[in-house]
Amino acid sequence: MNDLIVIGAGPAGITASVYAARKRMNCLIITGDIGGQTILSSDIENYTGYHFITGVELAQKFREHLEQFKLELKVGDKVNLVKHEDGIVQVRTEKGEYQAKTLIIASGRIPRKLGVEGEDEFKNRGVTYCATCDAPLFSEMDVAVVGGGNSALDATLQLMKIANKIYLVDVADRLRADPIMVEKAKGSNKVIIYNNAKVKQISGDKFVQGIKIERDGKEEDLTVGGIFIEIGSTPASEFVKDVAKNETGEIFVNCRCETNISGIFAAGDVTDVPAKQIIVACGEGAKASLSAFDYISRL
Amino acid sequence: MNDLIVIGAGPAGITASVYAARKRMNCLIITGDIGGQTILSSDIENYTGYHFITGVELAQKFREHLEQFKLELKVGDKVNLVKHEDGIVQVRTEKGEYQAKTLIIASGRIPRKLGVEGEDEFKNRGVTYCATCDAPLFSEMDVAVVGGGNSALDATLQLMKIANKIYLVDVADRLRADPIMVEKAKGSNKVIIYNNAKVKQISGDKFVQGIKIERDGKEEDLTVGGIFIEIGSTPASEFVKDVAKNETGEIFVNCRCETNISGIFAAGDVTDVPAKQIIVACGEGAKASLSAFDYISRL
Repeated sequence: MNDLIVIGAGPAGITASVYAARKRMNCLIITGDIGGQTILSSDIENYTGYHFITGVELAQKFREHLEQFKLELKVGDKVNLVKHEDGIVQVRTEKGEYQAKTLIIASGRIPRKLGVEGEDEFKNRGVTYCATCDAPLFSEMDVAVVGGGNSALDATLQLMKIANKIYLVDVADRLRADPIMVEKAKGSNKVIIYNNAKVKQISGDKFVQGIKIERDGKEEDLTVGGIFIEIGSTPASEFVKDVAKNETGEIFVNCRCETNISGIFAAGDVTDVPAKQIIVACGEGAKASLSAFDYISRL
Repeated sequence: MNDLIVIGAGPAGITASVYAARKRMNCLIITGDIGGQTILSSDIENYTGYHFITGVELAQKFREHLEQFKLELKVGDKVNLVKHEDGIVQVRTEKGEYQAKTLIIASGRIPRKLGVEGEDEFKNRGVTYCATCDAPLFSEMDVAVVGGGNSALDATLQLMKIANKIYLVDVADRLRADPIMVEKAKGSNKVIIYNNAKVKQISGDKFVQGIKIERDGKEEDLTVGGIFIEIGSTPASEFVKDVAKNETGEIFVNCRCETNISGIFAAGDVTDVPAKQIIVACGEGAKASLSAFDYISRL
């Protein structure tokens, strides 16, 4: 029986695991990938201690940090169900079943879909949810970015260096990203901003060829070879039914990262902590791990 | 009038300031030093992204990060009083008076004293509260470390490389530090551990020459040239009277780093968040800054 199972190896899960290893807890990590959403960011200027680092580089630093410790890692597995019976946590994955005294859910978030015609059809054929991964594929092309928050602006700034023309399509009347990013986008003659605009349809042949948007009750066609959908994300919490969540599926935690079930903790972007930030997720992961250690000490 | 005043420039204050700068908040930082308690740690293995870094090096990284942004810094000043009137925060320091719409208290903690005879008399003449700063001064000497938590063990591990003999004197019946550190100390033939032992007196001439300890009702004299007092710390929160605190003086915060007073936030080791960790303080600083930004947006 493990002392602890950590689900997820993004910033929260990795930090939780590092703390668990240092506390000599017998810890199993189950995760789809290592690095989590860190890789979705291009340029990171607010991870304290690295005044400038790319998401890919920081994810690599996290991986190296995790590898300093002898930890049991199941990478590429997916959790289907979490149960809690008689004080023992049961985790069922696609590949196996595991038990532990405590659990830290650090499964992060998954990108939200637009839900329009053509989105599924052209996924990975012009429709993408990760600018860092895919922007280089759209060199000198006209593209659209959908959204108005930090991730949409981050995608726009990345594409400014690569694409020919970027249509930034946002439903709101003004962009909500950090001013520093909005200023950069507005200062570029490559970027055309459409506020109060909604994507209605994605069309193409083998690949995306255009999108239909609606503004002020009028429809308009934009010729683009790619569309970057950056309209937020939903918490990856469906596999656990018993813990209390808010209406969007975020797991409720207190300041010690405790959920409503003793022995089950949660940390990072899957929780209702409002700041979805890498440095915050790391801090929460440390807290969750120390709480799990305290919990086991009292058993 | 500033948007924000940040008191302290340790991990929490620096991260709060970096986030404020990126949000284009007009921010003033008032602090005694830059780096805070980070410098008190020798070897840090649990700051995610740096699998090994010294406290001095990490503090330097933090300083460089802060310097990326044009922020108004008052270093070497000390806050005497914080008041909150008509929705405006007033901060009185030794050198001036400042006003802001919001305040983040990130003033950290100050080392706890033993409260025994000789402690004040021999301060900086053999009595020290910072192993990282002072351990190199005790080359090949016999020294005592007082305490049994992570900071005491950290001091012990540092001194193992420098001193001749280290008496680890702790009041409890077993050491409470991370097992990984306890194992290293126990494995050294330089370290003599006294459990259930209390320091009664520090004596010397120009410098410390010895300490008197009590064990099992018996007194014993140890000949040492230095004593490292590592028995915890108290929150640096005396300058603010109006915010709610716990019995040890830690400021109560909720998961958004809000105190009981609108517009006043707190982050890091000065708060009642139990995990006193660098990575946690950074995360809390980011949260406090984003909360202050939200607060101003709603004014």
